[in-house]
Amino acid sequence: MSSFRAPVELAKAYRLLNHGPTVLVSAAHGGQRNIMAAAWAMPLDFAPPKVAVVLDKSTWTRQLLEASGTFALQVPTVAQVDITEALGSSSGQALASQQTDKFAAYGLQTFQGDVIDAPLLEGCAAWLECRLLPEAAIQQTYDLFLGEVIAAHADTRVFSAGRWHFEGQDELRTIHHVAGGHFIVDGAAVDAQPLTPRGSQ
Amino acid sequence: MSSFRAPVELAKAYRLLNHGPTVLVSAAHGGQRNIMAAAWAMPLDFAPPKVAVVLDKSTWTRQLLEASGTFALQVPTVAQVDITEALGSSSGQALASQQTDKFAAYGLQTFQGDVIDAPLLEGCAAWLECRLLPEAAIQQTYDLFLGEVIAAHADTRVFSAGRWHFEGQDELRTIHHVAGGHFIVDGAAVDAQPLTPRGSQ
Repeated sequence: MSSFRAPVELAKAYRLLNHGPTVLVSAAHGGQRNIMAAAWAMPLDFAPPKVAVVLDKSTWTRQLLEASGTFALQVPTVAQVDITEALGSSSGQALASQQTDKFAAYGLQTFQGDVIDAPLLEGCAAWLECRLLPEAAIQQTYDLFLGEVIAAHADTRVFSAGRWHFEGQDELRTIHHVAGGHFIVDGAAVDAQPLTPRGSQ
Repeated sequence: MSSFRAPVELAKAYRLLNHGPTVLVSAAHGGQRNIMAAAWAMPLDFAPPKVAVVLDKSTWTRQLLEASGTFALQVPTVAQVDITEALGSSSGQALASQQTDKFAAYGLQTFQGDVIDAPLLEGCAAWLECRLLPEAAIQQTYDLFLGEVIAAHADTRVFSAGRWHFEGQDELRTIHHVAGGHFIVDGAAVDAQPLTPRGSQ
């Protein structure tokens, strides 16, 4: 268990996803559990914090999420790039038919969230526990799922006081999938400088 | 006008947003135009390519988008970080009441898209021309707008053959807003290596 994990206040939870990292989505129901990668996730609101994520109809995680009404988003690190890709391209349902699951198949360590049953993956940079906001029409038409964030956590080595700070923690930088197992890693931080529009005083 | 701009085939258009960059959203209607920053945007489908973006009710871009039924997403670069922040924190409607607009106020150069009327900002890394997919309920409830990508373009110095390649083009790296004008710039690229699950052959 990580000793660097700490709660993130809900008013700052959107900042865990605001920079557009690839996430892992986990869900559990009826004694079964699964986890998958998803590049298509984003914040949807500040307060209460909400998120949106796209989950293909073929995924088992989606079935577990729909059955349980809860799910977790977690933000993997560059140290987890291989398992992130593996979780995005393997089927949990196929493993379940063999009486195992992705966590066992890949030797993944998890911990219990504060609120929901979905397992949370050790080693990630951040975790968001979510309650599904049922919107049957867009779920069916667009594979688009909305959720309210009801608890959030982060590794304090890289996120604290509402900011990411990856300097000196290169292995914990978050990742952004492009396609086919090719990722872009978080780089330098930069602060915008104020511009003055023409005609203003 | 950039001589490095080239069309992106629609089947690869999702890759312009897959890594979660902050985008600029532009729209035009009835002789008026506006552009704003949005960190909450993502791909929604591969083919036809679709996108999702969150637009607050207070924004003028949203009004122009709803009236015209079309909009553009463009991916700004780190060289544009100051204008990106300015476009995310200034009101186009206030300028319009003074008979000007954000493009004039900030001296922005634009070019004409292939299909839609929304102005496209010069100097970005990529551009997606979109047709609104009207979904009144989620627009009203969640400020969530869906669109189909009907044309796409990229700067070939950093995107070609379906891949981003920022090496040697540091000024054209794309940016990811965290909060309050603080951004993370694209860093190194990494390719995941295959993992073999336990129990498989």
